[in-house]
Amino acid sequence: MHSHDEQHFESSETVRDVVIGMADGLTVPFALAAGLSGAAAISNSIIVTAGLAEIVAGSIAMGLGGYLAGRTEVDHYSAELRREYEEVERVPERELAEVKDVLVEYGVSTASAAVVADELSQDKDKWVDFMMKFELGLEEPHPKRAAQSARNIALSYVAGGLLPLSAYVFTSAPHVGLLYSSGITAVALFVFGYFKSKMTGQAPVTGALQTTLVGVVAAGCAYAIARLITQ
Amino acid sequence: MHSHDEQHFESSETVRDVVIGMADGLTVPFALAAGLSGAAAISNSIIVTAGLAEIVAGSIAMGLGGYLAGRTEVDHYSAELRREYEEVERVPERELAEVKDVLVEYGVSTASAAVVADELSQDKDKWVDFMMKFELGLEEPHPKRAAQSARNIALSYVAGGLLPLSAYVFTSAPHVGLLYSSGITAVALFVFGYFKSKMTGQAPVTGALQTTLVGVVAAGCAYAIARLITQ
Repeated sequence: MHSHDEQHFESSETVRDVVIGMADGLTVPFALAAGLSGAAAISNSIIVTAGLAEIVAGSIAMGLGGYLAGRTEVDHYSAELRREYEEVERVPERELAEVKDVLVEYGVSTASAAVVADELSQDKDKWVDFMMKFELGLEEPHPKRAAQSARNIALSYVAGGLLPLSAYVFTSAPHVGLLYSSGITAVALFVFGYFKSKMTGQAPVTGALQTTLVGVVAAGCAYAIARLITQ
Repeated sequence: MHSHDEQHFESSETVRDVVIGMADGLTVPFALAAGLSGAAAISNSIIVTAGLAEIVAGSIAMGLGGYLAGRTEVDHYSAELRREYEEVERVPERELAEVKDVLVEYGVSTASAAVVADELSQDKDKWVDFMMKFELGLEEPHPKRAAQSARNIALSYVAGGLLPLSAYVFTSAPHVGLLYSSGITAVALFVFGYFKSKMTGQAPVTGALQTTLVGVVAAGCAYAIARLITQ
């Protein structure tokens, strides 16, 4: 494994969860609150109530939804694994031919592919592992990751969402709250986007600007629609 | 390729986008509206305004956010591809050794692995393809998919979100709206969860119940928090 690949691996799991949760958490509650600030006859307390309801709903949808999706992935992997073991038992020639096909496709000669397929088939576990990864493209999911990942994503969503909302708690009129909220969130999205991009290997300033742009566009459109329908 | 794998492939791309968008679209706006129904002194028109602002914000965050993530994935793949081509040129022995390692790990003998690595290295494009997929585990992303996928996800979010919200347009009190909205959304989540699970190979009724559960829990918690803070 290359060193750049190992780096990706170490920084990956938890950071990936935080990035997923915070990207939406910083964007959607902010944009919702901004949208409601554009509506007629709405107070800060309604905005805070709606914002908190959104944070709760969004974090549960992402967290619990993500948890169940993770569990499904584990089930799916087990089912495919069982199927491969069955096939290796029931139709070994066909599975051998499939190993050969994978190799020949990459320019290995038919003769060498046959030798390798034969060697692979000596150990059933490794043979099945090979089929899972190289034929089906499936990586074994971590069974305990699902719950952990769900919690990380949900908490990041909550943390991200409370930041833009706090501006409406400490101000008394929606438009004042919107002003502070936009300032705080723009900075937060830029900083978040900068580090997110650095870690995924994207150009940091471009990534930071893109992340901020998503928030600004979402908030602008939400504001416009709320203003339109309450006029 | 197995027939069950091909099936996964055909039904996948667009369906996957619709599933992603609709899972959140049916859940979050529904739960937000349910939450606001639990708050004191809130009218249906405020709930509809907040719901629409959320739908706009959520669909843009998912759509535009997904589009940019897709673009980043394309860039990342190109960067890694360039790096592999460079390494194959600059340190071919090391890259050859890495091919051998991958094969030996699966039980191929050192001698056969050496022969195969040598054969693979005759065609640089296929050699690099092999490294990209089997060493780095990267699949080539579709450059045009990003925009298409973003649109599918965003539209599915909007479609999913308008359904629970419609109940508040055709009723006049939040609690009546909530009653209809819950009924409509529970049925929609169950049906959606059923077909989603069928397509991903999960047990359909279990999947349908799980999908419905996420919506019910999110709505229940949003209702509770809104009621608590406005009392």
